[in-house]
Amino acid sequence: MPHLNGVGAKIWYIPDCFWPDITNGQHYVSHEAICVLNPGNKDAKIDLTFYFSDTQPLCGFTAECKAERTNHIRLDKIVNDQGRKIPQGVAYAAMVRSNQPIIVQYSRLDTTQAEIGLMTTMAFPVNS
Amino acid sequence: MPHLNGVGAKIWYIPDCFWPDITNGQHYVSHEAICVLNPGNKDAKIDLTFYFSDTQPLCGFTAECKAERTNHIRLDKIVNDQGRKIPQGVAYAAMVRSNQPIIVQYSRLDTTQAEIGLMTTMAFPVNS
Amino acid sequence: MPHLNGVGAKIWYIPDCFWPDITNGQHYVSHEAICVLNPGNKDAKIDLTFYFSDTQPLCGFTAECKAERTNHIRLDKIVNDQGRKIPQGVAYAAMVRSNQPIIVQYSRLDTTQAEIGLMTTMAFPVNS
Amino acid sequence: MPHLNGVGAKIWYIPDCFWPDITNGQHYVSHEAICVLNPGNKDAKIDLTFYFSDTQPLCGFTAECKAERTNHIRLDKIVNDQGRKIPQGVAYAAMVRSNQPIIVQYSRLDTTQAEIGLMTTMAFPVNS
Repeated sequence: MPHLNGVGAKIWYIPDCFWPDITNGQHYVSHEAICVLNPGNKDAKIDLTFYFSDTQPLCGFTAECKAERTNHIRLDKIVNDQGRKIPQGVAYAAMVRSNQPIIVQYSRLDTTQAEIGLMTTMAFPVNS
Repeated sequence: MPHLNGVGAKIWYIPDCFWPDITNGQHYVSHEAICVLNPGNKDAKIDLTFYFSDTQPLCGFTAECKAERTNHIRLDKIVNDQGRKIPQGVAYAAMVRSNQPIIVQYSRLDTTQAEIGLMTTMAFPVNS
Repeated sequence: MPHLNGVGAKIWYIPDCFWPDITNGQHYVSHEAICVLNPGNKDAKIDLTFYFSDTQPLCGFTAECKAERTNHIRLDKIVNDQGRKIPQGVAYAAMVRSNQPIIVQYSRLDTTQAEIGLMTTMAFPVNS
Repeated sequence: MPHLNGVGAKIWYIPDCFWPDITNGQHYVSHEAICVLNPGNKDAKIDLTFYFSDTQPLCGFTAECKAERTNHIRLDKIVNDQGRKIPQGVAYAAMVRSNQPIIVQYSRLDTTQAEIGLMTTMAFPVNS
């Protein structure tokens, strides 16, 4: 199995993020994940920026995805360099930046109403 | 965190829109959102056109997405310049146009049958 | 509202099609739709081909999407020129061909287990 | 119905894979599928590699998609050349490689909590 360098993009966007503030599931909590795959042979350093409707973007969130590994970054768990978390029940969007090319997919699982709603999409890559 | 100008596209299409005319959810109403992210440093003026199976397109809907902000445009709430809303229970499609490059994602939450159905996809960009 | 000619593609593919053979929903039947948007000013003639795991493709299905209209083609309802329908409970895939550029999105609603499952994605365009 | 050679890509990535280790559905088990469509006239030999967060990639999984056929590869059923299966309840990612151009879509059906969650997306193609 070869590693493929240069595959993917270094910047990806996700316009529709939302962390429900209610969880009624038996097995799952309502959560989102930004799922990163690094098919290359160099570890990727990642930073995340979150956009809101009426306040300044929130930055200072970092993650790593090692070479030939995946990292499903749970958005309900990450904390930035100032101890801040993503607010719940608020419409937001995300930018993912990496120092190595990666592939990014966004998924949400919503258990606000007990039974799950599930959605996913590839993020939007910026070709540079 | 830098702002990235010129990222995205100015025209996006969504073929599958549908606003259910039934809501049985405890927490959510059936609704759709066109989620816009403007990563650049200029405010984006947006207009929306809706296509139907057998009648003229419906236009005159406008929105804004400020620089480095997101706008999750609720399709059950927008009203055009003639006071018209999107009809419920009807198959339709959407075009999103912006005077600045943006990124667009479409999502639907359906509570017709109490428990939620959830779906999302990036809209289709027109590269110009 | 201008019409945009030449936007989209003339051939689109959808690898994951499946028409559940069970329906338990109160409001919805299990169904799939290939949703077409024609943003141009010429009517589009469309034909559909369906691929299976171990039998010859099934063709002879046609549809139309008029200029500046949308057609949400219900896959549980279409019949080909020999009176054949899509089989239920079988993994299949689809090709959509049009004589005009169109945009294509695929969605499935599954009520096999009463509450709905919902999924969507843009189809895969062939750039020619 | 013509066959179209050279359509699609030979390498595709899916960052967000997860095989739930619980199944409570009446009709469905929790499962994932990598759905392949081969529109060309040559049979495609496919191999699959799976990436994890902290262990070496798992390879040696093969599949076939004959000319003008589809193969909905069930990830809960495939076994590699060493008799290994995909682990359940673990975040992972996938690479799909083919010796012929194909189109790839990923879908998941989750019945952990009885009623289904359903999600899908086109995989990310590598253009070569």
